[in-house]
Amino acid sequence: KANSLVVTSIDSFVENVHWNPSKQSYYHAGWKVINAAVSDIAAMGAHATYLTIACNLKKKMYYKDFVQLINGIRDACKELKINLIGGNLTSSNVNAITVSALGEIQKNNRNIKIMQRNNASIGDKILLSGPIGGAAAGRKLLKKEKINKTNNKMIKIFNQPKARTDIGEIIAQEGVKCAIDVSDGLLQDLLHICHASKVNAEIQLQEIPLYTEAIKTFGLTQAQKMALHGGEDYELLFTANNRTIDRLKRKCIPLHVIGSIKEINKKKQRSNISLIEKDKITLITKNHGWEHF
Amino acid sequence: KANSLVVTSIDSFVENVHWNPSKQSYYHAGWKVINAAVSDIAAMGAHATYLTIACNLKKKMYYKDFVQLINGIRDACKELKINLIGGNLTSSNVNAITVSALGEIQKNNRNIKIMQRNNASIGDKILLSGPIGGAAAGRKLLKKEKINKTNNKMIKIFNQPKARTDIGEIIAQEGVKCAIDVSDGLLQDLLHICHASKVNAEIQLQEIPLYTEAIKTFGLTQAQKMALHGGEDYELLFTANNRTIDRLKRKCIPLHVIGSIKEINKKKQRSNISLIEKDKITLITKNHGWEHF
Repeated sequence: KANSLVVTSIDSFVENVHWNPSKQSYYHAGWKVINAAVSDIAAMGAHATYLTIACNLKKKMYYKDFVQLINGIRDACKELKINLIGGNLTSSNVNAITVSALGEIQKNNRNIKIMQRNNASIGDKILLSGPIGGAAAGRKLLKKEKINKTNNKMIKIFNQPKARTDIGEIIAQEGVKCAIDVSDGLLQDLLHICHASKVNAEIQLQEIPLYTEAIKTFGLTQAQKMALHGGEDYELLFTANNRTIDRLKRKCIPLHVIGSIKEINKKKQRSNISLIEKDKITLITKNHGWEHF
Repeated sequence: KANSLVVTSIDSFVENVHWNPSKQSYYHAGWKVINAAVSDIAAMGAHATYLTIACNLKKKMYYKDFVQLINGIRDACKELKINLIGGNLTSSNVNAITVSALGEIQKNNRNIKIMQRNNASIGDKILLSGPIGGAAAGRKLLKKEKINKTNNKMIKIFNQPKARTDIGEIIAQEGVKCAIDVSDGLLQDLLHICHASKVNAEIQLQEIPLYTEAIKTFGLTQAQKMALHGGEDYELLFTANNRTIDRLKRKCIPLHVIGSIKEINKKKQRSNISLIEKDKITLITKNHGWEHF
């Protein structure tokens, strides 16, 4: 297409790694893998257009599970207004779904700007598009035996997250240059930004937006831990200077300032995050989020 | 990009389904999955540009196997002049590699034409870009104990096939509208064309180009069977009228006419292939190639 730039992302969901079939339905597995792939496109500031999907499925998979999976995929595509244009089906000893998403960025007579994790600048504020830790709370609740799991907000956030396609493009157009989704957990994803941008970060624990329900159920300390390490929330974590933040506010973009980007200590090569809690500062240099290996 | 159309493909290779780690190296698994994905782009008449790759790997995978896999992927990308731009790595109980390829079709002041399997026209000739059955012969040889497996042409064709990126775009530009790669086997892929185009096909067994080495090793009858059912050859199977064939010949495109496209029998809904061997006609209505389920 004329005057546009194509971007792409790829993401896999593997049974018993990314979803637990005894706790989650195949419908939710299908829903989540689509949203995970599209979330990466939104975090680049692009408009998701088309998907292809590779399903590696067990020969002995139940037909009803297969139908659920397909329905989850279909409903997610419908909700996100994105077209599934093709795919590949093969047998495997482990159910795994891989989604490749295409997106485009319109030029609009300006320079094309893809939001990237290596574009954080010293002095930028660090922002979140919404509360986090909800998916981790939901994941924890699913493991409990004696609770009512229907209509639980946390479980719904875990099972049916929604990629922030509503704001990804707009914040890029308004000048945000650095973004990532909080799919691996706040600290891990912020470290991704810090390492890629060769900067440090400073965040205020009490500024991190949380779900009231998570605080009610697990207490503030646990809710904060889930926000820091949980992941799978798919809110956008981004950096911006004050002028850009003012523009975002005028566009009514939901945002929560949680800290700022600092210069890296020249002697210490490795980036770190200073997590500030009242007078206490915790220095974070290693990932604490989802690590699959 | 201006004046171009973006196409995409996705393909998965699963250990013990698409490759046997006791007979094939991880290098070849990496090489093959890249070529398989790019082959689909070539069969659309597009120029492959970028790849993303999702590796679902066992935690206990040997480091040397991982390096081999990456080397196979890297060498295939280099050979095909295509850039690997990103990917996803996750753990799984089964090694599986999924590749998503992007390609583009230049407009060149003409209408954009993607070659598709549903574009075969009655009266078209059916053509192959080269001999087939070689990969099946190689697969069979790998299972034998007492043979010298180095420098065996059939085994090399099986282990290191090459996507026909050299001719895909050109035949599309010269007017070929319907193509597919012979990755599932001649009969199955021709049935894909017949079903999608709602036509029948008639092919002459003795016109199918074979590898001399396969005939020498396994005899003519076996070599023909491998060509009909084998798959994984990645030659292009396409249809064209006589005018287009003349243009292809002037461009020195390798081609072998093996039959022609016929009208479907209106009473019988389902497409079929008439396989002609001297006076004998075999009617093929079901797939006999690779079926993973």
